[in-house]
Amino acid sequence: MEVIYDRDRLRQYRSGVPQPVGFIPTMGSLHEGHLSLIRQARKECKTVIVSIYVNPLQFGPGEDFERYPRDLERDVSLVKEAGADGVFAPTREEMLPRPSITKVTVSGLTDRLCGASRPGHFDGVATVVTKLFHLIQPDRAYFGLKDAQQVAVIQRMVEDLHMPVTIVPCPTLREPDGLAMSSRNVYLSPSERERALILNRSLEEATRRWKTGEWQRGTEAARYLRETITSEPGVELDYAEVLTYPGLEPVESFHKEEFVLAAVAARVGSTRLIDNRIWQGRE
Amino acid sequence: MEVIYDRDRLRQYRSGVPQPVGFIPTMGSLHEGHLSLIRQARKECKTVIVSIYVNPLQFGPGEDFERYPRDLERDVSLVKEAGADGVFAPTREEMLPRPSITKVTVSGLTDRLCGASRPGHFDGVATVVTKLFHLIQPDRAYFGLKDAQQVAVIQRMVEDLHMPVTIVPCPTLREPDGLAMSSRNVYLSPSERERALILNRSLEEATRRWKTGEWQRGTEAARYLRETITSEPGVELDYAEVLTYPGLEPVESFHKEEFVLAAVAARVGSTRLIDNRIWQGRE
Repeated sequence: MEVIYDRDRLRQYRSGVPQPVGFIPTMGSLHEGHLSLIRQARKECKTVIVSIYVNPLQFGPGEDFERYPRDLERDVSLVKEAGADGVFAPTREEMLPRPSITKVTVSGLTDRLCGASRPGHFDGVATVVTKLFHLIQPDRAYFGLKDAQQVAVIQRMVEDLHMPVTIVPCPTLREPDGLAMSSRNVYLSPSERERALILNRSLEEATRRWKTGEWQRGTEAARYLRETITSEPGVELDYAEVLTYPGLEPVESFHKEEFVLAAVAARVGSTRLIDNRIWQGRE
Repeated sequence: MEVIYDRDRLRQYRSGVPQPVGFIPTMGSLHEGHLSLIRQARKECKTVIVSIYVNPLQFGPGEDFERYPRDLERDVSLVKEAGADGVFAPTREEMLPRPSITKVTVSGLTDRLCGASRPGHFDGVATVVTKLFHLIQPDRAYFGLKDAQQVAVIQRMVEDLHMPVTIVPCPTLREPDGLAMSSRNVYLSPSERERALILNRSLEEATRRWKTGEWQRGTEAARYLRETITSEPGVELDYAEVLTYPGLEPVESFHKEEFVLAAVAARVGSTRLIDNRIWQGRE
């Protein structure tokens, strides 16, 4: 497996590999969730390329860009073990040789949920993913559904800009106790780790109730999530919303929607965590 | 030569043609300027694709989107004669199957010159060129320098987003009397046509004076252009500016800049025309 640091070598490498090319963009600090994306790509593609790049454009002021966990050596060995063919690990200089005055924005979809709490976040995501797509030219790109809004934004961007790539959304992986895997979980103290379980537990119980048909509108399910999470001491709710997926519009009636996203975000100590469920029709 | 109307056929066509692929995006209503781009591409590329699409995103309210001249049959025969291999002539439906909420913006460069007079114009240009690049995947793309700001914007967008394409700027072509070729010239009455010559004449004389070294700063050259064009009856000046190229910054001293853009825009009757010169060093 080759580790590539610069764009020139990447273009050269890319032009010589067999297609289809599968691509997994990451910010490193890899966990089983990322590795499951690599394994999925391995099954479907002749070449699998992983990028490792902590994208400054998607962090707001006061967010954790500086302290975001980085360990390239460990990441590279995990990627290799998972079966990738190449790693693209550019420096900031290589990705941003000068200030980028060009931005890709997806309006509407990005002003709610995490977009409301993190202004500019999705512009940064859309812009860097566009750059990576241009550099790597993948046929298929794999994204985890823990970031369900991100998947919706990227999917819409790809369609609107007629990008020649297929987006493959993949299921969220969880720790044995149900906590959604995230690179930010390492920030949690043991007691915070315990309290963080309320995110998954509330979504689990909401899914059960939604199945019974006791709720008609998205706002009823969202109220349940909001109240449950707010009642947990040491957990500060950011949002709890139940919207259509991938359109992210209000759910007037669960019976009318094919897919619905129940999404929550909360701060546990100083760590911001997100989790969700996607409900398909009425089971 | 094949004329392609839909994206699916285009992808299929594209995957089977020899590389490098040269691309000339146009809004149709072709003149010798466009044809010179096609001939240039023909010399440098194995496959030459021309797009013909009047892009609604780059017209502002009250602009001439509706009356913009369209004659696909004539255009296709000109493109064929000039030696292209394929024409992509999508319908609006095909390029915009649903409202595009994704936008590509290049800030800074787009707030001056034509960008100041036509808010949103360059967002529309950058967005549609991105879409066309994704559909056609050219190795080289050819643009006329009559739209010098457009070339600067696209070049910067390509660099910022690491797009795998080389931008080839090509010289402006002129009518025998010096008027820069433009699809909008057909709007001009014979007397407007006569008055429109002031744009080229003022640039010609400004170039002569610049060569003598009588000007130190861009603003002096711009004042000359402004006064000359304003004194022509029936011609309403939009702007006359002399800026660095491609950075579009003020010129403090002609001796310090490698390339300088002298750009003018004016309305002659109801027709908006632009013209420019690019000055390289002190000759």
